[in-house]
Amino acid sequence: MSVLVVGSVALDTVETPAGQVTDALGGSATYFSLAASLYTTPIRLVAVVGDDFPSHGLAILRDRQVDLTGLEIGAGQTFRWIGRYGDDLNSAETIATHLNVFARFDPKVPAEFRNTPVVFLANIDPELQLRVLDAVDGARLTAMDTMNFWIASKRDTVTEVMRSVDIVMLNEAELRQYSGTRNLVAAARQILDLGPRAVVVKKGEYGCSVFTPDRYFVVPAYPLEEVRDPTGAGDSFAGAFMGSLAGSPVLSWSAIQRAAFHGCVVASFACESFSVDRVLTLRREEVEERLGRLLSYSQVEPAREEEQDHVIQNVAAT
Amino acid sequence: MSVLVVGSVALDTVETPAGQVTDALGGSATYFSLAASLYTTPIRLVAVVGDDFPSHGLAILRDRQVDLTGLEIGAGQTFRWIGRYGDDLNSAETIATHLNVFARFDPKVPAEFRNTPVVFLANIDPELQLRVLDAVDGARLTAMDTMNFWIASKRDTVTEVMRSVDIVMLNEAELRQYSGTRNLVAAARQILDLGPRAVVVKKGEYGCSVFTPDRYFVVPAYPLEEVRDPTGAGDSFAGAFMGSLAGSPVLSWSAIQRAAFHGCVVASFACESFSVDRVLTLRREEVEERLGRLLSYSQVEPAREEEQDHVIQNVAAT
Repeated sequence: MSVLVVGSVALDTVETPAGQVTDALGGSATYFSLAASLYTTPIRLVAVVGDDFPSHGLAILRDRQVDLTGLEIGAGQTFRWIGRYGDDLNSAETIATHLNVFARFDPKVPAEFRNTPVVFLANIDPELQLRVLDAVDGARLTAMDTMNFWIASKRDTVTEVMRSVDIVMLNEAELRQYSGTRNLVAAARQILDLGPRAVVVKKGEYGCSVFTPDRYFVVPAYPLEEVRDPTGAGDSFAGAFMGSLAGSPVLSWSAIQRAAFHGCVVASFACESFSVDRVLTLRREEVEERLGRLLSYSQVEPAREEEQDHVIQNVAAT
Repeated sequence: MSVLVVGSVALDTVETPAGQVTDALGGSATYFSLAASLYTTPIRLVAVVGDDFPSHGLAILRDRQVDLTGLEIGAGQTFRWIGRYGDDLNSAETIATHLNVFARFDPKVPAEFRNTPVVFLANIDPELQLRVLDAVDGARLTAMDTMNFWIASKRDTVTEVMRSVDIVMLNEAELRQYSGTRNLVAAARQILDLGPRAVVVKKGEYGCSVFTPDRYFVVPAYPLEEVRDPTGAGDSFAGAFMGSLAGSPVLSWSAIQRAAFHGCVVASFACESFSVDRVLTLRREEVEERLGRLLSYSQVEPAREEEQDHVIQNVAAT
């Protein structure tokens, strides 16, 4: 089943305790597309880059069955983000944001994309998100992301998008900011009251939580001994989550559970290298193998005979 | 199987966004004892209070089969902690600590306690923890907690205790402080390298993680829409964890998984009211009922026929 994503394609300059990269391939729609393409194809990308965008960037996307019909190449420079992570890899410090051609982004959804069944509105101006949502009138499952900037500057429009999609995906800081409450349960309920069927909260090193009006589920993050660059982890999560869902004929609770696990697994790979490097080389078998381990880290072993249990130490008197 | 705990019995004055209490029953050993007594009895308490300690506090403990033979009543005032929580209920601001009789605490383990099979060293001076450990030469399962103050002031002695116990239990801030690394996986490995069989990391609203040299497990926190007072949640976690383990003849991986779930469940009850109020009225059936729900929040539903799945929305073209 095809998936449409609208978002940014960018060139990132990033410094972390593990190293740095300059003008490396990045952007929410890039990470999303590469992650989602592990699950389903084609991914239909609606975005804009400048005329300086390296052709190898386009080749990388095309190689992964990302349909670039909706990628506009504007006159000027590509969106650039310059950021830095300190020891706390959960939050980036933005050094500079050069919107360049992205400042005038007016997403045009090609006619042949209007029937795309699954649509993801990555973090862009909520007014543009609404416009894209109007254009994809054949969509059967829609989801959105946003960021602190839009929550602060265009809260009402963000609310309008939340009312209009099936799934709202946010990180916990954004959820707290939007709701004005620190308690995630109360915060998620506020958003669910607007109408979406699920709220997916990305919690970085703590994994994710999924809230529906009557259910709740938590997936832990895959434990990494070294996080080299968390940039794009949230968008990779979203790509795997939506890609996994697109493989299911119905949005069901078990499909959501599976999607959340896949999201956490692919996000963990994204953190292992700078830019899209690891997501790019990632094979589905590697995802499944790590998924099996993440399940073992969170699923209780079935009751078994004592002799089959993993005994660490005797406690009872001998 | 009996469990011995050494720690503080205190009178807490606490303010949170939900209210406040003055000179309410508190202390690590108090919360631990009440939580552990849900699982096993007797709990053998080694602690000190002042001669101002209210007799109803003693009655509460006795009612729960807490053996007070090791509770010294010293001349002077009981240990008092005065603290405040803001909107971030994960960390308390200490306004004042009056050690009073606790400053001269010299734990004496009654002769009949030396063979207690399960021993928990709650947060006290690590030199006293070592002394207690020496005294309980019949113990078959030992665990410790500590706090930022001791990690900063007596790190080598804390290390010595870690080398000497089976289970090290810490919150994530303490683990990061001790190890000097933000990454919990790397930090836990540092402690495991000292020799304990397991490191249990308490993560507040994110639940807990258990590390052994070759295994890893995560339990999410039970989601609460209102946290009235998180004081004692970590000690209640420890009490339920150790109490649950004490019910198992061997320290096995599945016993640890079960203990971690019980820890998170009882900790969630502790957060629902001030002081020990909720832990005190807590019945084992309530724990089991909430445990069932926490499992449903983290365990993947078994694969099932589509018609039995909880369908939220159709995605495929009709």
